[in-house]
Formats: sequence, structure tokens, C-alpha cells
Amino acid sequence: MTRWKLIVEYDGRNFVGWQRQDNGPSIQQALEEAVEKLAHETVRVHGSGRTDAGVHALGQVAHFDLGKRLTERAIRDGLNYHLHRVAISVLHAEEVSEDFHARTSAKERGYVYRIINRRAPLALDDGRAWQIGRHLDAEAMHEAAKVLLGRHDFTTFRASMCQAKSPVKTLDVLTVTRSADEIRITARARSFLHHQIRNITGTLTQVGEGRWSIDRVREALAARDRSQGGPTAPPDGLYFTDVVY
Amino acid sequence: MTRWKLIVEYDGRNFVGWQRQDNGPSIQQALEEAVEKLAHETVRVHGSGRTDAGVHALGQVAHFDLGKRLTERAIRDGLNYHLHRVAISVLHAEEVSEDFHARTSAKERGYVYRIINRRAPLALDDGRAWQIGRHLDAEAMHEAAKVLLGRHDFTTFRASMCQAKSPVKTLDVLTVTRSADEIRITARARSFLHHQIRNITGTLTQVGEGRWSIDRVREALAARDRSQGGPTAPPDGLYFTDVVY
Repeated sequence: MTRWKLIVEYDGRNFVGWQRQDNGPSIQQALEEAVEKLAHETVRVHGSGRTDAGVHALGQVAHFDLGKRLTERAIRDGLNYHLHRVAISVLHAEEVSEDFHARTSAKERGYVYRIINRRAPLALDDGRAWQIGRHLDAEAMHEAAKVLLGRHDFTTFRASMCQAKSPVKTLDVLTVTRSADEIRITARARSFLHHQIRNITGTLTQVGEGRWSIDRVREALAARDRSQGGPTAPPDGLYFTDVVY
Repeated sequence: MTRWKLIVEYDGRNFVGWQRQDNGPSIQQALEEAVEKLAHETVRVHGSGRTDAGVHALGQVAHFDLGKRLTERAIRDGLNYHLHRVAISVLHAEEVSEDFHARTSAKERGYVYRIINRRAPLALDDGRAWQIGRHLDAEAMHEAAKVLLGRHDFTTFRASMCQAKSPVKTLDVLTVTRSADEIRITARARSFLHHQIRNITGTLTQVGEGRWSIDRVREALAARDRSQGGPTAPPDGLYFTDVVY
């Protein structure tokens, strides 16, 4: 039995999310079917974390166990051959030791949220970014983001269906930068709550529009109450970039 | 009569190209129909240059004349309302003097060609970049690009159906830069021949793969013979970025 680690890119618009579901195609199912076609073995593919419908990945990590012996190149190119009709690409395949687990071995996860801040709709980035017409002050958003750094009870930014045992997480990086029309929010942590980045993004845009003060963000965090947080940003702009092990 | 200048973004995959054609939807036709829906006037929209099917634009420029008086905002937002089903976005609309002409007033045009240099197929950038699996030496490509800078007879890099009167053009900028997996070729000139950038890109990739020396590029240019040039790069990676007036 060989344990394989994959680094995977996908366009989230084509899927109901990472996890197998009854209501449509998932990335997990597509990968499991590709392994079955390639190696004629039924496997369970474990992801480093779930992504919602419409959320993209530049570097999702997954693992699975395979009896058949194949080279790294055969795994990568063979899976891509069977994935060529769906928007999933295996960037890298690597043999790892059997104590590696895509989810539980992860030390840090990285995400980027892309906002295109302009009046005109998105011809090239439709579904790939959140278009906001009202001017956003990215520096104010960056200052407000500092309030959320570190270890906190993030109940205010947690989806009601979140399955995490504890709402306490440690946010290691949360930055907001602007380059021309594009604002990027970068977030890094060992793990995140469900919708945490999208809820934080929605809150930071309230600051960017000048509706919320930084103090209000501080109060919202302290309230530990989802109704005190800002709106949930759409999935379109969210990219799962990488996992550190 | 008011002359309007537009800056337009589009996804070239949805069109047969900029110019009106019988065999499918063009960007020119879509814009003319949007103006007609907005202002109930039949106009001719003039572009700064044609783009082929599959070639994208971040900043194509066009102009048209309208009898009806409308504000800049009404033109931009009104056209975008009528363009919302197709992947065209009007970024900017501006009243200009009647001696402005999108094509003949242009002093410089800018393009970027995106190559993703990796083995794995493109899940997120399919149709938006040229994926090349074999390793490309971007520095060698950049050195070879210098051979093509300046005023030359570019017959070697000209499509057979090119309608330009002269094959002599002046290339002001031609750079090749790499950032991780992505190689970007930036080209700027007053004007270009048909397929010039795609033919130059195809030739530079031969250098990047180590098949062609820089001297061979010099000889190909001097030959003034299309058959001595490299292959034509696909439209997917080409972006018309901007026009200077």
C-alpha cells in the first residue's frame, strides 16, 4: 500500500464543493473516480479541508492509499488524463509515509480572497472574484484586519452549520493589499471555521466602504454573535492557495 | 453629435473576434447592438485594432458617434446593462472631440501573452493562457526578444492574410519575464501585423526550449519569409492590454 499526496487546482464553479454530496458533482468524487479509472481500485480521497461550492483552489492537498505501484509521474499525468473533462488539475503527486494525513498533519492553511473594486462588471473574472462598485479604502480594511489577528473566539464569523468543536482559532496572517482595481485579502491559520474568511471579508468591506469603524469590528468580535458580524462574501473570490505540513 | 470613447474588456473565447463576421458573434456587433438598445440609434463602433477569435482584451479602445445626449455614467452603465449576457464589459466611457479616432489616433498599443509553464493542464486558466509542459528558459527568450526590437521588416512573423500595406513595423517593447510557473511576454508598438505577437511568441518558445539559438532568430527575421519563423502561438494567452493616444 502506498500513500499518495496530491496538490490539486480547481475551478469551484463546476462543483457543489469539495465533499461528496448527493446534489451534484464534488471534487472529492471526481478524484476518487479518476483514481478508479487509472488504477482500478476504489479509494477514499481525503482533503486537507472542505471548500464550498464556487470556492476555487490553487493548491488544495489530498491523500489516498493505493495498492498498485505507479510512479509519481504516472499518478499525476494519469489522473489528469481522466480529469480532462472537468476543471480539476493535479499539479503534483508524491509518495508520502503512511503517517501523513492531508487534514490532520496540516500545520497551516492559506487562502486569498480577490475583490475587483470597480463599477463595471467582470468580463474576464466573472465567478473568479467579487466585484464591488463602491470605493473601498483598502488601508482602512488592513487596519481593521489587525483587530482579528491572533487567538480569538470567532463565533461572530462562524457559519451556523459549522461542525468545529471549538470557535477558538488563531489567525496568523490577515492582510489587505490593493493593486490598481484589485484588493487581495490574505489569510493564514492552522485551521479555519466554516465561512470564517468569507464572513471576515464581508465585515472588512463594511470598513472599506466607511460604514463601520475599526471599533465596531472589535465590538463585533467580542460579541461572539454571528448577527453582529458583517455579511458573508460570495464564494467567487475565495482561493485555497496552499497547505504547510 | 457626440463622439464617445470606450475602454472595453472581453473574454475572447465567446467571439469570432473583434470584427463583424457572418460566422458568429463579434465584439463589434455586440457593442453596436448594445448602443442601439440603449439609445435607439444605429451606429458603427470603430475599434483601435482587430483581435482574433479567442484573443482577450483588458483595455481595447473603441469609438462611436451618438446623436442622443447621455452622461458618461449612463453610457457605461447602460451599455453594461445590455451586455450583461455576453462577456464584454465597458470599463470607461468618455466624451472626446470629433477628431479622435480609436484606430488612426493611436500612438501605441500594448499586449501581454501569458504562458503557464508546467506539466499539469490548466483548471483555472483554461482558454486564458498557453500551457507548455516542456521547461522554458525565460531568460534566453528575453535575450532572443532583443533581436526583434526596433524597426524591421517583420514578414517572417506576418500572417498570410495580413492586410497591412507594409511589413515594416517598429517594436518598442518586447520583454519576457517569469514569475513562478507563469511567463509573460509584453509587446508594445504603434501598430502590429496580423498574428505578429502570436508568431513571435511561437518563435521565442523555440528558443525557450533550447531548440533555436538566438542567431537562428536573427536569421529568421532577416529571411523575411514566414516559413522561416516559428509556429503561431494559440490565441488563448493573448491579451490586448491598452492603447496610448
